[in-house]
Amino acid sequence: MPIPADEAQGASGRASLDAVADWIDAWAAPVAAEEISLAHAAGRIAAAAVTAAIDLPPFDRAATDGYALRSDETVGAGTYNALPFRLQPAANGVARGDAAMVHSGDPVPPGADAIVRLDQTFADAAGVIAVTGPIAAGTAVERAGSHAGRSSVLVPAGRQLGPAEIALLAAAGIERVGVHRRPRVRCLLATDHKVGTAGTLPLPPGAIHDANGSMLAALAARDGGIVMDLRAGLRERPALREALALPGADIVLVTGGTGEGPNDHAAAALADAGHLAVHGVALRPGESAGAGRAFDTPVFLLPGPTAACLWAYELLAGRAIRRLAGLGPGLPFPARALRAGRKIVSEIGMLEVCPVQCTPDGEAVPIASYAEAGLAAAVQSDGFVLVPEASEGYPQGAPVTVYLHPRRSLS
Amino acid sequence: MPIPADEAQGASGRASLDAVADWIDAWAAPVAAEEISLAHAAGRIAAAAVTAAIDLPPFDRAATDGYALRSDETVGAGTYNALPFRLQPAANGVARGDAAMVHSGDPVPPGADAIVRLDQTFADAAGVIAVTGPIAAGTAVERAGSHAGRSSVLVPAGRQLGPAEIALLAAAGIERVGVHRRPRVRCLLATDHKVGTAGTLPLPPGAIHDANGSMLAALAARDGGIVMDLRAGLRERPALREALALPGADIVLVTGGTGEGPNDHAAAALADAGHLAVHGVALRPGESAGAGRAFDTPVFLLPGPTAACLWAYELLAGRAIRRLAGLGPGLPFPARALRAGRKIVSEIGMLEVCPVQCTPDGEAVPIASYAEAGLAAAVQSDGFVLVPEASEGYPQGAPVTVYLHPRRSLS
Repeated sequence: MPIPADEAQGASGRASLDAVADWIDAWAAPVAAEEISLAHAAGRIAAAAVTAAIDLPPFDRAATDGYALRSDETVGAGTYNALPFRLQPAANGVARGDAAMVHSGDPVPPGADAIVRLDQTFADAAGVIAVTGPIAAGTAVERAGSHAGRSSVLVPAGRQLGPAEIALLAAAGIERVGVHRRPRVRCLLATDHKVGTAGTLPLPPGAIHDANGSMLAALAARDGGIVMDLRAGLRERPALREALALPGADIVLVTGGTGEGPNDHAAAALADAGHLAVHGVALRPGESAGAGRAFDTPVFLLPGPTAACLWAYELLAGRAIRRLAGLGPGLPFPARALRAGRKIVSEIGMLEVCPVQCTPDGEAVPIASYAEAGLAAAVQSDGFVLVPEASEGYPQGAPVTVYLHPRRSLS
Repeated sequence: MPIPADEAQGASGRASLDAVADWIDAWAAPVAAEEISLAHAAGRIAAAAVTAAIDLPPFDRAATDGYALRSDETVGAGTYNALPFRLQPAANGVARGDAAMVHSGDPVPPGADAIVRLDQTFADAAGVIAVTGPIAAGTAVERAGSHAGRSSVLVPAGRQLGPAEIALLAAAGIERVGVHRRPRVRCLLATDHKVGTAGTLPLPPGAIHDANGSMLAALAARDGGIVMDLRAGLRERPALREALALPGADIVLVTGGTGEGPNDHAAAALADAGHLAVHGVALRPGESAGAGRAFDTPVFLLPGPTAACLWAYELLAGRAIRRLAGLGPGLPFPARALRAGRKIVSEIGMLEVCPVQCTPDGEAVPIASYAEAGLAAAVQSDGFVLVPEASEGYPQGAPVTVYLHPRRSLS
């Protein structure tokens, strides 16, 4: 018996992906910030813009090894009119007629306004160098604040902190940074099938190994979240309802029990615990997915079969977790424009995920579908094409957007 | 005084990037494997192909909720000739004239060879259903081994373990997996400039904050390595030489002291400790980079200025760490074909890294260079264009390959 859901549900009884995305975007905002050490900040998301307390560079500095001098004193210098400068220690500053040896990165000594490179000079007498050409003011000087001025924004709010962001913050002397807390994810495994313990082989008859728990942990981590609680064996509606009432999670993922058979209790338990907003989505694999809220915590219902669980996560729950984490909501896969290497077929009315392999000459060739190959389709493919709800697919040679699995094609 | 290096050095005295890549590829092979729990395997690299010990699915199972029956007994069924089947518990198996209720994912009961969906039946008398159409053998049955057969390869050697790979291994009951150990990276900070402690503001006059240590830790982690030791203050050649003799690292990164001034001691210390293969690379920023071996451990010399350190890492040391980690050696950035939104200028003879911002209409617009803006160029850009050594750049409108900083443009 289908459970009626009150929002986003189309005439077919299945919500469109766009409608579910709108539903998510209406409530999913980044969780609160926390302050952490820069040493642990790689991959985290800046919760606010970080500004510089100092100039970068902090002082005028030499951009090369050479001699600091007053540029106006080099006017008229040439190969046949080398002009002499007395060498002085840089610590003394540079007076008229003086030059001081500096190394790349050294402060420009007081009085000097340019650095002449070693190969534009020669040693003249003891303690005297000669300059063989005129030098413009500012030559080979990195001005204080030229990379980033005091009070300028080093890293904008919402930026994921990669190596360059971390280095820029470190250069500015910043050692603690405000980032969004990782959204806390609770996973509830609600399948009514017998589940064997990992490592137990052979399995008892009729049992399978749970794959959804480990998969969801890796997916949530990729999207900036953290699985803080994973509970298995919630085969009955009251037990699942009770688990949905547990506090502490920013988002709950239920897997299994999402179908419409008599044993499928996930939607009913969510309706008991709060509010079922969506049940049934125009997505293949993943059409029995649902979503709602329990005790004010957002809940996604993900199908038990692992390939369907994967895609319901990627296209529904993942969007929510990425938003909670402060990341962009879009799919975290690079997209590439290729051509269909063979006809790609899809049922109209369903957004279908079609696994493809990519050829060196820019073709995306469909391989055995998720219905046929299950999760092996994800591992054997280079990426996937999303065939929209309104489309029956693509003829051979048609342009298609392929989302690439990370890393695979980058070697 | 340039220090002569004996390999890969071009006529200009600078090694080409290709020559250094060849030098790296000649020795950099994945480090030994270790066995770890699947729960900690996300992002790691399979050291060998992992095969299935069981069939996936482990048994013939129902792909839908419905009734299991013998398909040959449905021949001739139709809307006006509904054929009756006696309901029996699935545990009894399915004899002639019987059907058994199954849920999606249940084992197909012995004797049955197809599942008829609920909507192709109606309840007839008590304990009897009627089937309203013929069903082909195998309908809605997922055959044992159809996703992956026993002994088939689940994950090939060298594959980075993402959520789908982890789920497939979990489904096969695998709980420990052989992955390449993370290459151990030692960072030696050899600058002779005064370095302030992070968080100390204002800095003492002439001092800067070290940014290279934090940056290299984040870079090495991204490329599958781990910084196991970071030593600062190695301002003198003997101290650096001593640090190069320390055991335990798979690779050593030295930053600072790579120039040709009298205070630059990195190349000399490496020559003392072993073998300087390259010093001076046709790369901007990063031309004072070098490489070699000390006590049989590969060593990269990275310039002290942080932008130069970044690019010498990305284009030289990173390649080596990725190979040691078992990853593909290429740049870990998605590439996109765009057009130059303005002229891109580069000095011939140097591979130059040009930071660009991308416009929505597919143009790559150059922004202030690394020489002008330092590391801020990395943070303010969407990606970068590599102008090859033989090129002076690109005219406006020319096709260019842009390497995109991760995540930024994926929302």
